[in-house]
Order: sequence, then C-alpha cells, then structure tokens
Amino acid sequence: MGSKYPKSVRVWLPLWALTLEVIFIVVFFFFTSHPASAGEQKKLLRNYRAFQDVFIMATLGFGFLNTSLRRHCWSSIAFNLFLLALGVQLAVLLDGFLIQLSFRKMVLDMSSIQKATMSATSVLISAGVVLGKVNLLQLVFMTLIEVTALSATRLVGLKYFSMDNHVSMMYIHMFAAYFGLTVVCCLQKPLPSASEDKDQTATSPSLFTMLGTLFLWMFWPSFNSALLDIADERKKAVLNTYYALAVSTVTATLMSALTHPQGKINMTHIHNAVLAGGVVVGAPSYLIHSPWLAMVLGFVAGVISIGGVKYLQVCLQRTLELHDTYGVHYTFGLPGLLGGIVHIVLMVLQAQGTDKSTLGYQVLINVGALGFTIIMGVTSGLLTGLLLNLNIWKSTHKIHYFDDQSFWKFPRLAVGY
Amino acid sequence: MGSKYPKSVRVWLPLWALTLEVIFIVVFFFFTSHPASAGEQKKLLRNYRAFQDVFIMATLGFGFLNTSLRRHCWSSIAFNLFLLALGVQLAVLLDGFLIQLSFRKMVLDMSSIQKATMSATSVLISAGVVLGKVNLLQLVFMTLIEVTALSATRLVGLKYFSMDNHVSMMYIHMFAAYFGLTVVCCLQKPLPSASEDKDQTATSPSLFTMLGTLFLWMFWPSFNSALLDIADERKKAVLNTYYALAVSTVTATLMSALTHPQGKINMTHIHNAVLAGGVVVGAPSYLIHSPWLAMVLGFVAGVISIGGVKYLQVCLQRTLELHDTYGVHYTFGLPGLLGGIVHIVLMVLQAQGTDKSTLGYQVLINVGALGFTIIMGVTSGLLTGLLLNLNIWKSTHKIHYFDDQSFWKFPRLAVGY
Amino acid sequence: MGSKYPKSVRVWLPLWALTLEVIFIVVFFFFTSHPASAGEQKKLLRNYRAFQDVFIMATLGFGFLNTSLRRHCWSSIAFNLFLLALGVQLAVLLDGFLIQLSFRKMVLDMSSIQKATMSATSVLISAGVVLGKVNLLQLVFMTLIEVTALSATRLVGLKYFSMDNHVSMMYIHMFAAYFGLTVVCCLQKPLPSASEDKDQTATSPSLFTMLGTLFLWMFWPSFNSALLDIADERKKAVLNTYYALAVSTVTATLMSALTHPQGKINMTHIHNAVLAGGVVVGAPSYLIHSPWLAMVLGFVAGVISIGGVKYLQVCLQRTLELHDTYGVHYTFGLPGLLGGIVHIVLMVLQAQGTDKSTLGYQVLINVGALGFTIIMGVTSGLLTGLLLNLNIWKSTHKIHYFDDQSFWKFPRLAVGY
Repeated sequence: MGSKYPKSVRVWLPLWALTLEVIFIVVFFFFTSHPASAGEQKKLLRNYRAFQDVFIMATLGFGFLNTSLRRHCWSSIAFNLFLLALGVQLAVLLDGFLIQLSFRKMVLDMSSIQKATMSATSVLISAGVVLGKVNLLQLVFMTLIEVTALSATRLVGLKYFSMDNHVSMMYIHMFAAYFGLTVVCCLQKPLPSASEDKDQTATSPSLFTMLGTLFLWMFWPSFNSALLDIADERKKAVLNTYYALAVSTVTATLMSALTHPQGKINMTHIHNAVLAGGVVVGAPSYLIHSPWLAMVLGFVAGVISIGGVKYLQVCLQRTLELHDTYGVHYTFGLPGLLGGIVHIVLMVLQAQGTDKSTLGYQVLINVGALGFTIIMGVTSGLLTGLLLNLNIWKSTHKIHYFDDQSFWKFPRLAVGY
Repeated sequence: MGSKYPKSVRVWLPLWALTLEVIFIVVFFFFTSHPASAGEQKKLLRNYRAFQDVFIMATLGFGFLNTSLRRHCWSSIAFNLFLLALGVQLAVLLDGFLIQLSFRKMVLDMSSIQKATMSATSVLISAGVVLGKVNLLQLVFMTLIEVTALSATRLVGLKYFSMDNHVSMMYIHMFAAYFGLTVVCCLQKPLPSASEDKDQTATSPSLFTMLGTLFLWMFWPSFNSALLDIADERKKAVLNTYYALAVSTVTATLMSALTHPQGKINMTHIHNAVLAGGVVVGAPSYLIHSPWLAMVLGFVAGVISIGGVKYLQVCLQRTLELHDTYGVHYTFGLPGLLGGIVHIVLMVLQAQGTDKSTLGYQVLINVGALGFTIIMGVTSGLLTGLLLNLNIWKSTHKIHYFDDQSFWKFPRLAVGY
Repeated sequence: MGSKYPKSVRVWLPLWALTLEVIFIVVFFFFTSHPASAGEQKKLLRNYRAFQDVFIMATLGFGFLNTSLRRHCWSSIAFNLFLLALGVQLAVLLDGFLIQLSFRKMVLDMSSIQKATMSATSVLISAGVVLGKVNLLQLVFMTLIEVTALSATRLVGLKYFSMDNHVSMMYIHMFAAYFGLTVVCCLQKPLPSASEDKDQTATSPSLFTMLGTLFLWMFWPSFNSALLDIADERKKAVLNTYYALAVSTVTATLMSALTHPQGKINMTHIHNAVLAGGVVVGAPSYLIHSPWLAMVLGFVAGVISIGGVKYLQVCLQRTLELHDTYGVHYTFGLPGLLGGIVHIVLMVLQAQGTDKSTLGYQVLINVGALGFTIIMGVTSGLLTGLLLNLNIWKSTHKIHYFDDQSFWKFPRLAVGY
C-alpha cells in the first residue's frame, strides 16, 4: 500500500495547511484579546467544568466513536484531534465576526471556546460518515466549509428566526448528519473490494469504540445543558437527558436482539443507538416537566435508531448508493429531527396564555428554522461534495495518510498478509 | 457456536424485557415528577459533580473491570451498561416507594439518581462473578431481585438498625460480593473445557481491565464521600481514601511478586487488589483522624486481597467448587467485611463520653446491621441462584448473546480456529 | 524468557520494598495529621476538582502514554501506578519536612497531596525514558532519589531564587527529562536484538498510548493553572494552554507529514508532539495577555518537537548512544527549556515600572534558577545512573517482572512464537 503522492504534492499539501495555521495566528493577533478582568472565581469554575465536559466529549468521545473499522482506528483518532483543533480556531473567529458583524477586536473567554468546540463537533459527526473515503486535505477543506456554513446557519437562526443559543446548537446533530450524508453521496464510490476490507471490524478497536460511546453517554447531560442559563432549565435538561439515555440503552439493546434472526445483539448497533436518546431530548430537554416524557422519547429514539439501521439503511444503500458505515443518519439525523419536532409541539402545548395568531406565527417560524437548518446542511454538503470530486484531489484520493511501518506491524503479523 | 434459541424464545425474551421497560415508563408516569424549584445553582453544581464521579465509576470503571477474559470482553461492557440503565430505573422507584412507604407521587432530583446509581453498582459487582455463566435474561432477572433485596436491606438498616445513608451504602460491596458468590454456587458448573477457554486472558482486553481499574481507583474517594453531608467528614473521607488506595497499591504489587514462585507480578492480582484499599476504608473513612490509620488499613487490605486470591481461592474452589474468576470475594467481600468491623471498633473508641450501657447497645445494633446485610445478601443470592437453575432458562443456558460476525472476526483469525 | 532471580533475591527484594512502605507508615504516624477544621465547603470543592484533574493526568495520562511498545504495555501501566503511589507518599513527607525545615508534626490537606502528585509526575516522565532498561527495584530506587532531588531543587528555588510555587513546579518537565536522559546514558546499553524487538509498536497498544495522550491533552490546562492563586492569572493560564495545545496539534501533525519521505503521518510523533504546546506555555502562561502569543509558542513547540525527533534524535543516538524511545527530550525537555526562557523574557518586558538594576538582578536570578534546575536534574540523574550500574542490580538486570502466563498468552499465539 505505497503512497501515490507525487513529490511536489507531498510537500505542497502540508505547507498549504501550515500556511492556513499561520493565517489563523495573524488573524488572532489583529482581532482577539483575552478578557480584561477575570470576573468572579465561581463563574470561572462553573464555566471551566461545563466546558471540560464538552471538550472531553469532542476529544475522547467522538475520537474513539469511529475506531471500529480495522483500518481506520488510528486515522480516526488522530484526524479527529486534528480537525477539532483546527475547527475550534476557525469557529471562534467566525462566531466573533458574524455575531458582531464587523471586524472590531473581540474578547474571547471560556464560553467562546466552549461554543466553538460545540460547533466543531459538527465536523466530527460528519467525519464519521466520510472517514475512509477522503484524505486529510479533503477533510481540512470540508472542515472549513462546514464550520462556516454552520456559523452562518446559526447566525441566521439567531437573527431572523428568533432562536436562542441552546436550540440552534442542538440542531447541529441534524445539520452535521445531513451535511455528511450529502457529501458522501457526491463522492466517488469506493471499489467494492477495498470497501469490504475497510468495513471489517475488530474486537479490540471495537472496545475502543465502546469507550468513545461511553464517554459520550456519560457527558451528554452536560452537552444538552451547557448553553442554558436558568438554573431550573439546566437541572431539567440534565435529568431528562439521563432518563432518555437510560431508556434508549435498554430499548436499543433489546431491539437489536429482537431484529436479529438468531436473537443476538449486534455491537455496531449498540455503539450508536444508545446515544440516540441523548440526541432526541437535546432541543426539548428544558421544556419537559416530568421524567416519563423523556423516557418515552428515549424509547422511540431507541426503536427508530435500530429500526433505521436494520431496514432503512439497506433501502437507502440500494436506492441512493449511500454508504453510511456508522449509521450516523439513525444516531444523529433522525433523532435530531424528531427532537426538533417535539420541541415545537411542546412549545405550542405550553404556550396556553398567548393568543392564537402569535402562536401560529411562532410555530411557523420554528418550523422554518428547522427546515432552514436541514436545507443549509444539504446545500453546503452538496457544495462540499462537488468540490471534493474535482480533479485536483484525484491524485491524492483514497490514500492512507499514516506511516505504514508503525501502524501495520501487528495486524499484518496477526492476519497473515 | 450457533445459537440454540428456538424461534419463539428468541422473539419472546426481548419482548418480555421490553414490556418491563414499558411498565417502568408507566410507573414513572403515575408516580414521579421533577423537583418544582431548582434550588440554588451552587448546590446543583456540587451534586452534579459528585454524581458524575459515581456515574463514571459505574459506567466505565465496572464496565471495563471485567473485560480481561478473552471471550467476554464485549459482553461485559454492553451488559454492564444495560444492567446499569435498567437497575437505576428500578432502584429510583424502589427507593422512593420504600422510604415513603406509600404510593404517593415522589419528587426525583439528582441525589435520587445518585443513590440509585450506587445501588445499581451492587448488580455490577455481582455480575463480575456470574458473567459467562448466565445469559442476558438471567442477568435481567438477577438485577430485579438484587436491587429489590438491597433496597429492602437498606430500608431495614435505616429504620430498625439506625444506620445512616453513608454506612448502609458502604455495605453494598459486601452485600454484592456475597450475593454473587451464592448465586454462582447454585448455578450448574460449566464444562471444564469451555470454562478453561473462557478464562484465558488476552493482552489487549487486559489493558482495558486496567483502564477500568484506574477509573475506579481515581474516583473511589468520590464514592466514599458522596453521601456524607458534613464538610469535615467529607474531607476526611476523601483524604483517607487516597492514603488507603496508595498503600494498598504498593502492598498488592509487592505481595504479588512475593507470592509468585519466580518473583513476578500477576496482572490479574493487580486489577483487583489495588482497589481493596478503597473498599476497606469505605465505611469508617469519616471516623479516621490521621493518615496512618488509613494507610495501615490499606496495607492490611492489600495483604488480604492477594493472600486470599493466592491461598483461600484455591481452597474454596476445591471445597465449594466456587469459581470466582475475578476474585470479587477478595476485592469487595473480605475488605468490605473488615471495613464494617473497623467502623464499629472506631465508633466504640471515639464514644468516650457516652455511658457503658448505651455503648453496648450501639455495638450490638451495629454488629446486627453488619450481620443482617450479609445474611440478606446470602439469602437473596440463594433464592436467585435456585430460580436461575429452573428449567425455563435451560434452553437458553450458556449461550452467547452477541452477534458472532462482528465479534469474532479478529480473534478467530488471530488464534487460528 | 524464564526468570533469572536466585531464590534469595526474589524474596528479599519485595520484602525490602515492603519494609520501605512500613517505614513510610511509621513516619506518617509520628509526623502527620489531617487538618483540624474543614474550612469552607466551597474551597474544598475547588481544590478537590483541581486535584482530580492533576490526578487523572498522572494516573491515566502518563500510565497509558508509554504503552506503545509491544512488550511493555502492561508493565508501564502497572509500574506507573506503583511509582505514583510510592512517589506521592515520599513527596508529601519531603515537602512537609523541607519547607518547615524541622521535624514538627505537619498538617496534610488536599493541596499537599496535589503538590506531591505533581512532584511524583516527574518520576513518571523520567520512567518514560528508562522503561524497559531497568527492573522494578531499580525504578523504586530511582523514584527515591528523583523525588528527593526535586524537592531539594524546589526548596532551593523557593528560598534562594525567590521563585513561586507555580514556576518551580512548571520546571519539573525539564528537570524530569534531563534526569531521565542522564540516567539512560549511564545505563548499560541493551543488546541490539532485544532492543529492536522491544521497540516494535503494535496497533492496539498504540491506541492506548493515544488514550494517554488525549487525557494529558484535555487536562493540561488544569495542570498549568493548578498552583496559581489569583483568579485572573488562573483564567489566563487555562485559555493560553488551550490555544497553545490546539496550534501545536495542528503544527505537529502537518510537520510529521512534511518530514516523512512519503508524506505520511507517524503516530509516534503525534503521541508526544501534540503535548509540547502544553509544556511550552507552562511557566509563562499567566503572563501572556493575548491568544496569539500562546499560539505562536504552540507553533514553535510543534516544530521543535517534530524536528527534534526527526533530526536531533538520530544525531544524539549516534554520538551519545542515547536511546530516547519515546522522544521525552523533545516533548518535555526542549519545550520546557523554551518555556522557561520565554517566561524570563516576558517578565522583563512586562516590568516597565521597575528600575534597571533591579531588573538586571531579577533576570540574573531567574536564569540562575533555570540553570540550577537543569544542573540538579543532570547531577542527580548521573548519581542515579551510576548507582543503578552497580553490581548489586546486575543479577536482576533486564528481567521482566510480570507473570508470563497471563501476559504472553495472546501475543504469543498472534505472532507465532
């Protein structure tokens, strides 16, 4: 599996990305500064912790979530870290510029980095779909477009659809899933033999995937409550997420056994399906007043997630030739969409005092925001997919980017090739 | 290794468990609600953190602790997550019903879920003994009985033995160990050849076990201090647990080398023995006024734990045909018992002001609580074991529950069968 | 690979170490106590969290960082835990005795254990260099000398070079790297064949290394801010460390691709190089007022770290026969030195109000402190290396200390020997 890079490309590509990093530093030099005063210690503490939980999810959780394919385990973790580090820098800058809509100096505190980390998470979700089909430079390019498109979407949502920070951030699961799926639709199909080989799972990497799943599972309540400011809503978001995750875990495990011809549990189902409960209560979590509703949503998410992987995936793979290896559509896409709809329904049900016409307007504007997010995801994904199909990437297409020597020694011995 | 389920059973069993989940949701619908007001932000923060540490121990720590056997690594993590998610739901309901002794609506806040998670931990400890000898449905059944028995034991302890929340929760190590050991005594003996194969350890899963051990090690101080309300006691519990863990680690490592004929260190010893220090100071931690006593307890725990595995285990395996693969008896059972005794001794020594007769009564009632916990563990374990031996489980006995295709690809290649 | 211990040695060595543990307990008995009052709950909480982050880095991060060599993966994690548990006990005692310079009773609270854990981290860094070249007893001996030397160095720095706690602790990366490198220079060279075999990396352990890297990466901001008392400085340290880590990750990944003849990324580079950004901003982090400077330092650290491994390592290995398997020199040594220099430069630049002569004196004393730390590292390393070369260790030299049976079963099958 020798590299097919011509020498000029090998040197040029990393240099191009290094230049990007230098540009970032220059922009930071001119346009950013630390906050002047520290504020009170207590708030720093709270922010730091909330931030750390989100950071652990992005670094460890998503890093290890995509390691189950035998030939991508290393790449996925290292690429994940690389894309996160790059995406956060871009997201911090874009959030600052877009929200103040000018090029004044901006003050970056902990919560700026936190929001940027959550935005960069969208890249990690999309990377789960395209991993193994593109090289590192294409991923860098995808990161630039996706983070920009997401920041623009969130800005429009905040300004014109009167969304709040929390809800617009909870839509990123959906945005990222449909972005990634559209990109992968546009990409050239991999050769069947190579793809089959790459899809083989291995025991030990699969345990790493489980590690990623568990880290996401444990810290999901922090993710769903990170951008809520009122203590009461924050508490409800945390509790509801726990209930939904617990029920979706039980449901997904049993559904996996139920749909298997021999009554066995498929691990690749479990890796993703247990998280669907966290995704589905993302947007509406702060509006749910008793545990049972969160549990019902978790139940539905578990059923959708496993049912989707089992029946819908085969269908989509045949009609659209969509190769969604990790079932991102059923973990993040559909549950995110369901969560958005539930959020709108709950808003209507709980807005009893308001008069009819205002309510109708509110529903309209919320459905619009939901639809706009999906459309932006698909459109920017289409753009990315088409650009990634251009000839300039051809020479570097489908080439592994890791040093064979250190990587392949052990498996090569083990599997005898 | 094809599945031996008849088709009816394959469909019926998951449906039975799904029905259980639906029943849980219905009970939550009628009897639970979120807390009305949020309380102050600060308390939420503290509770959330303390809770998260316990949650990480239950999910990651115990999940990975039992992965060292080559053929159970996946099952153990996924089953652990499943049993935890199920056990917490049951424990939350039972705690509520048993403590208010009526079927009024109950308010569930963060600390309810925290206590329920700690109760569900008992299932995870017991599962460490029976794993590989029962199937998932038997584990579900075991979970239902064990959580119910533990809740009843804790209720009796709180009401009639005047124990506090902290001490009664610290007894769960002991309860869970003797419950699991009794269950495994009652179960049919596995065929020797299969058992031998299943007991093989592998390098990479064993590193995962070490990961589980380290997570438990790091967060044990949080576990031991989670239910203490007075800041001073909380601080002492944290400090003493650190000292005890440090010394038990050093002692266990050296004892393992000392008892090996060639002076080597056995990793399976280390996995469990380093934790014995945390178990032993569990109950008495808040009563220990200087570091040396915690260190002495850690030293004794390390010696007991390694000595037990080396000498007592062989003895018990021969006489009782007890197959305690992971040495749960020596990590959780004996150190927990020792901790309970030390707790009583320290209470007597520190109660200088009280008059003799009250003291005698206190000792009596504490010894009674300790004995009652063990008796309840053994009795409910016996009941579970006998029920699990019934013919209805026979057809499904000793069947792996995981999808072979994704699970066995890699090891099969590696070990050539 | 049978053990070469004579029976007397096998029994004597662990007993010697156990005696050491008993001596520790006796010293703790006579000279230490818990703090009398608990202080306020809030401070306990803050300290506990800050401490836990550092503890996770020491236990998990450094434990898994050195697992990539196929034959040391277990040893490194278990030895790491053992050395940490031992080193912390010694460091707690030494810090207490040296700072009060008498043998009065000392009060040990959470922050004592935190500082001791950070001191013991130096042993874990040095162990990364010597691992696989010494046995457990030699490591115990090394721990005793290194912790003592570091405590003495820090004491002299605090008393005579007017350093503060933060800066003197940030110098430990440098101290530990040069200590370890000097020790390994003095040790007998391992036989080439054995060494080659031991240097083979394997996929799955390498994922564990990545796990260690990620844990260090995520919690490094806590390490860099743990000893700062002013909220403003603390906040700056956290933010700057994030920026530096993000940029060093991007730079190191791209530099690795750039320096590889086929444009691939070497995983062993990534394991260490991404951390260089955290090391370099360690000392000066609280003095950096805007993000760009931290980013530039991260950029330089990434370049130094990869460049060092690629070009300087080969050079040093040839001239000094220095076998720095994990590139500790380029992760901790050089970036730590650079950080120290940057710290001095920033102090000068920001001290505009002070008059010239005071400034000159301050620069002199700071350069002195930096030089003194390195000299102490090299000197104590030299002493340790010479002592470890004595004949008493010879009989036990280069002997693995782990139980073959449980350890080697799986790889032996897998690689066919």
